[in-house]
Amino acid sequence: MPRTTLIHGSPDDIEAAYYDALARADLDALMALWAEDEEIVCIHPGAQRLVGHAEIRAVWEDILSSGGLHIRPRQLHATQNMMTSVHSIIEEIDHGNEQPDVHVIATNVYLKTAMGWRMVMHHASVAPGAAPVEAVVSGAMLH
Amino acid sequence: MPRTTLIHGSPDDIEAAYYDALARADLDALMALWAEDEEIVCIHPGAQRLVGHAEIRAVWEDILSSGGLHIRPRQLHATQNMMTSVHSIIEEIDHGNEQPDVHVIATNVYLKTAMGWRMVMHHASVAPGAAPVEAVVSGAMLH
Repeated sequence: MPRTTLIHGSPDDIEAAYYDALARADLDALMALWAEDEEIVCIHPGAQRLVGHAEIRAVWEDILSSGGLHIRPRQLHATQNMMTSVHSIIEEIDHGNEQPDVHVIATNVYLKTAMGWRMVMHHASVAPGAAPVEAVVSGAMLH
Repeated sequence: MPRTTLIHGSPDDIEAAYYDALARADLDALMALWAEDEEIVCIHPGAQRLVGHAEIRAVWEDILSSGGLHIRPRQLHATQNMMTSVHSIIEEIDHGNEQPDVHVIATNVYLKTAMGWRMVMHHASVAPGAAPVEAVVSGAMLH
């Protein structure tokens, strides 16, 4: 039996599954999205670097023990080739009616492996001020 | 005439050239190491996200106007495939004899382009405490 399951879908699908797993506090689903590579890296905002499955899993287990995280990835900028997708996003988190005085920027990197697209890097950090609003260029606006 | 120059070398060579360009405050050399892609992203510690050559260049120009930055990339963890190299490093900066109370973690992503290996992402952020010291496994220690 393979140690990991074949997961279908594009890098965008893996990213959606990642934030969905966080929302559901589903640690196993979350960890299944990472590549089978002990050099994978996860950096939480303002925290030290975590390397490899054991370290990454232990900290997520601790975070998710108090419930799911509801994060919406927004304002995607991506560079890619046939085997890689490098995503830069703003992690939008509910603040109720308050204007947040910081925002979180995340880098998510996906590599194409034998088992499908998998995450190899999550680097999140805090930036000052509310997230800048980028102009949205939508096809619908051209009509 | 091509807009960019062919640069030879591995992702490690590009990374060395990047920190060398910072040390020499050589803005043109620095910017030549980035991919010709307007989705490239640069995030300085505690700062907002910069997207594309113009934004990235303008901020580096401002930073380097007061002189070179002497940074040593240390404790590399890397994941890669034939067309991509994802580096996680600690950016070691001289603090004299003082023990620093923070350290900088950086993610550098390199893609293989028609013009050679180029940077598409630099994400640096601050973590608390001095940089953890990792066990060094060296061939020389086995003798």
